[in-house]
Amino acid sequence: MIILGIDPGTQVLGYGLIRKTPRGLEHIDHGHLQIAEKLDFTERLGIMAQRVAKLIEDVKPDVAVIEKIFLGRNVDSAFKLGHIRGVCIYEAIKAGAAVAEYTPRVVKQSITGSGSATKEQVQLLLYSQLQIRPSNKSLDASDALALAFHHGSQIDVLRKLRGAGIDL
Amino acid sequence: MIILGIDPGTQVLGYGLIRKTPRGLEHIDHGHLQIAEKLDFTERLGIMAQRVAKLIEDVKPDVAVIEKIFLGRNVDSAFKLGHIRGVCIYEAIKAGAAVAEYTPRVVKQSITGSGSATKEQVQLLLYSQLQIRPSNKSLDASDALALAFHHGSQIDVLRKLRGAGIDL
Repeated sequence: MIILGIDPGTQVLGYGLIRKTPRGLEHIDHGHLQIAEKLDFTERLGIMAQRVAKLIEDVKPDVAVIEKIFLGRNVDSAFKLGHIRGVCIYEAIKAGAAVAEYTPRVVKQSITGSGSATKEQVQLLLYSQLQIRPSNKSLDASDALALAFHHGSQIDVLRKLRGAGIDL
Repeated sequence: MIILGIDPGTQVLGYGLIRKTPRGLEHIDHGHLQIAEKLDFTERLGIMAQRVAKLIEDVKPDVAVIEKIFLGRNVDSAFKLGHIRGVCIYEAIKAGAAVAEYTPRVVKQSITGSGSATKEQVQLLLYSQLQIRPSNKSLDASDALALAFHHGSQIDVLRKLRGAGIDL
């Protein structure tokens, strides 16, 4: 099973790829797509959407795990983020993937034991659990990988609970 | 030139089609896509996105005119609206269309002379200008048609101004 984590954004979009095998979770790749040029929002959305659609097409994930955000007071940024999130969700569905969503807090909690851990702490523990050598990959990339990792671990927990006769 | 107006939404999405010819603007069609079933947001987004993508593919617009909203205080609805708007913009770009955006206020002003006209007044005047017989089409449909109509009129205004040596 291929799990693709996505930390959406129109300027920087993190992605992380995990393979779930009977032996456990294996790191395949993680990184980010970035648009450096100064473009207006619609142009940037068009380019980022095209790149993420290509990524999903190449990767053929079984599940796309997309970061669920806490909606604060900034309407404008929530509105803009919605645009690229909408494209990610639709492209994932179109590619036949299931869609899962988790808040950063839940992912941090599951990986580090604390919902208020820093992105750096998440990266460190995630790299250690997946036996990835420290690299200069961005925090957007490791955030996305953390989403995929959390989803992969979650499936096992649910399966074990079901095995024990507990259905959530 | 085919102009497609879109009033985006995940529950109801209005569309209006105008043909711009040397003789003026002609009404082709207007209507709305609606999802009646009670579905969760992601499922509804997936279905509406697929339907609007199909519409754009069938219509092959030269321009897609998408309603620009006033961002009020409701972060949640702006966030959700962003999702379907993102899909509309990306699908339009993918189909080779230009993307234009206007606020409802500007469109109302241009059609009725008042930015605070009601949707019913817009529909009435629009139908009269396009010689459409009154029908029971929804206000979402006529709103979308108004977007397309406004864009079509706008092009002429800009052209005339350019003809007079005024470039905006």
